[in-house]
Amino acid sequence: MKISARNQFKGTVTAVHPGAVNSEVVLDIGGGDSIVATVTNGSLTAMRMAVGKEVIAMAKASSVLLMTDGQGYVLSARNILRGVVTEVTLGAVNGEVSVQLGGGAMAHAMVTHEAIASLGLEKGQPVMAVIKASSVMLAVPA
Amino acid sequence: MKISARNQFKGTVTAVHPGAVNSEVVLDIGGGDSIVATVTNGSLTAMRMAVGKEVIAMAKASSVLLMTDGQGYVLSARNILRGVVTEVTLGAVNGEVSVQLGGGAMAHAMVTHEAIASLGLEKGQPVMAVIKASSVMLAVPA
Amino acid sequence: MKISARNQFKGTVTAVHPGAVNSEVVLDIGGGDSIVATVTNGSLTAMRMAVGKEVIAMAKASSVLLMTDGQGYVLSARNILRGVVTEVTLGAVNGEVSVQLGGGAMAHAMVTHEAIASLGLEKGQPVMAVIKASSVMLAVPA
Repeated sequence: MKISARNQFKGTVTAVHPGAVNSEVVLDIGGGDSIVATVTNGSLTAMRMAVGKEVIAMAKASSVLLMTDGQGYVLSARNILRGVVTEVTLGAVNGEVSVQLGGGAMAHAMVTHEAIASLGLEKGQPVMAVIKASSVMLAVPA
Repeated sequence: MKISARNQFKGTVTAVHPGAVNSEVVLDIGGGDSIVATVTNGSLTAMRMAVGKEVIAMAKASSVLLMTDGQGYVLSARNILRGVVTEVTLGAVNGEVSVQLGGGAMAHAMVTHEAIASLGLEKGQPVMAVIKASSVMLAVPA
Repeated sequence: MKISARNQFKGTVTAVHPGAVNSEVVLDIGGGDSIVATVTNGSLTAMRMAVGKEVIAMAKASSVLLMTDGQGYVLSARNILRGVVTEVTLGAVNGEVSVQLGGGAMAHAMVTHEAIASLGLEKGQPVMAVIKASSVMLAVPA
């Protein structure tokens, strides 16, 4: 599969929580990290989703937030992945920040200059990559 | 909390509409503006969400649309916030547009050059910031 | 309507699948292409959504993924539109890729340089524009 999603995590389905229109799929992506994705039931059926299935979870860099301090707050985002910044590439108004997660996988976030400055994002900085379950897309072998 | 979300609105929960997998949370962010967010039920429980609770609603600049004329149309987006452009920062293919809302809060949108040109976005231009409920993330004090 | 959404597709509703909080709306956008959008039930009511209704489906360029090879995989994204790249505009960290769909409509995706390089995106390249149903916004005449 060749697709533009900057974030691609291989994982195994550990739970499927069905709803009326959307369902929630939970994956173990290794290294103690898990990913939650919300997908439509139409997709769930087409993908024959089930516990134990191997899937690829994908998210665009533009849908990833970065957090350096979440102390004292609970977030609605289901995916909060701890890591360390490995690279910051600055553009004119945006920058791409690459983060190595605890389990070894890489996450990439496209954030504004403003955010890079105010969070002090630079190589070596511990950071959390925050991704809403609804921003995650899944792919399974046919 | 230090997080890269360019849009952060403090508000108070005025309604919670539960669904099977997702629920809808409505906030009053002051100045007559309200924000609707769709979050998973897992988050709702973890956040002990309830009417009267103080929350921070967050949205990435890349998930905000700008509209200068909605005459004659009804949109599916639940959040349509009126304001005035205060700044336009141009990048190579994108630009960041800052908007002061009626209630005083600031909204920030990352849109293409094409959109900035075709909508004639410049300082002083009245504009509506449009945000899908599913693009809004919530944070509550632990 | 003047709005910053880079992707705007005119279509006719062919199905509405209601859920508890969100519903799924399916549109025929011509040329054999269809678009699926997930919207909240509040919006559905406000828009008086029904089969046969004419709507405009909108998506930000930043929410569109591009895929050159999906062989052997099933994706959770409900919208996979085949087309050909007509233009690539490079920025500092992102680039905008324009795609002419089979039915004649244009799709626009904002993707990273990395993706443009690794997928070999250039004029004339066949490509699929991939859009999650939750990234699509709808507008209907009032």
